[in-house]
Amino acid sequence: MQADRVALQPHPVKRPLALSKVYGLLEPGPVLLLTTSHKGADNVMTMSWHTMLEFEPPLVGCVVSRNDFSFAALNATRQCVLNIPTADLAAQVVGCGNASGARVDKFARFGLAKAPASVVAAPLIADCYASLECRVVDTRMKNRYDFFVLEVQKAWVDRSNDAPRTLHHRGYGVFRVAGETLKLASRMR
Amino acid sequence: MQADRVALQPHPVKRPLALSKVYGLLEPGPVLLLTTSHKGADNVMTMSWHTMLEFEPPLVGCVVSRNDFSFAALNATRQCVLNIPTADLAAQVVGCGNASGARVDKFARFGLAKAPASVVAAPLIADCYASLECRVVDTRMKNRYDFFVLEVQKAWVDRSNDAPRTLHHRGYGVFRVAGETLKLASRMR
Repeated sequence: MQADRVALQPHPVKRPLALSKVYGLLEPGPVLLLTTSHKGADNVMTMSWHTMLEFEPPLVGCVVSRNDFSFAALNATRQCVLNIPTADLAAQVVGCGNASGARVDKFARFGLAKAPASVVAAPLIADCYASLECRVVDTRMKNRYDFFVLEVQKAWVDRSNDAPRTLHHRGYGVFRVAGETLKLASRMR
Repeated sequence: MQADRVALQPHPVKRPLALSKVYGLLEPGPVLLLTTSHKGADNVMTMSWHTMLEFEPPLVGCVVSRNDFSFAALNATRQCVLNIPTADLAAQVVGCGNASGARVDKFARFGLAKAPASVVAAPLIADCYASLECRVVDTRMKNRYDFFVLEVQKAWVDRSNDAPRTLHHRGYGVFRVAGETLKLASRMR
């Protein structure tokens, strides 16, 4: 892992995104880097089990397993950031998935740069294409499915990139990268 | 819509898939065609709000809005099939999203071929790359989020296609097509 090289790359310039447009970022199913901050320690985990639940305010359902170190932080602070990486971060995505925050500072290990969030304590990942600041608003499915309902309260996106090469996990480190863009006449939001 | 041409194309040959491997089909977030059968009528709707909830037996959470004609069928029969289309079916995917089964036989209108399922009444879509026969196993999130928990009970996939060009919706008929495959050393299931 060449952390120095990664950390020295210019970061995407993210600007605020209207909350009504957030679904267009998550509906395609990208792998996410979920960040938390708890008891003075920031952590990041790789996560692909998520779905939109409502357009606006944007609600997102996601599975954070009780076996993940991030579970305790998310459960206690009820805050997180969903960061959307692109293919240039594939090695970091897999690295974060293979390591545990119980033993490693994954930001340092994998050269991921933090930036302050505006409404939550967890950090944005500066290297990512988009970042969504979230609060937990429903935990009724937590005991049964480790399923948290998040409300996106602030959204940031690199508007200069209208075809982000997001990663879509198929298991065991095999990803498809978002490719060709198709545009069809549709009334489907 | 050239329904005749579509109907005459050879269909993918789907074979059974081990249930433990189903997550690799849904985790990447493809748009789905959800089929139901209720009161003698089959229907199909386009759907992108879904997530894995458990590996095995595979549990899938999905939003089927009470505004969708399929809601009543899914709610009453507690059965459906999740079909995964590829980019050659993009026009059908959008067509099914713009039309309502209350007024249109979408299979006929869009030239989608049915095949019998093995454990549910809803049909497989023969044109699709994969089809997952499901039963509703939990409706506790239905009233609040129109969210159904499905258990996949039988899975079918075209094994000749190891890089299916799945569609990933970004809103209003804009899709990204699954492109390049990346393989990294990972312990992440």
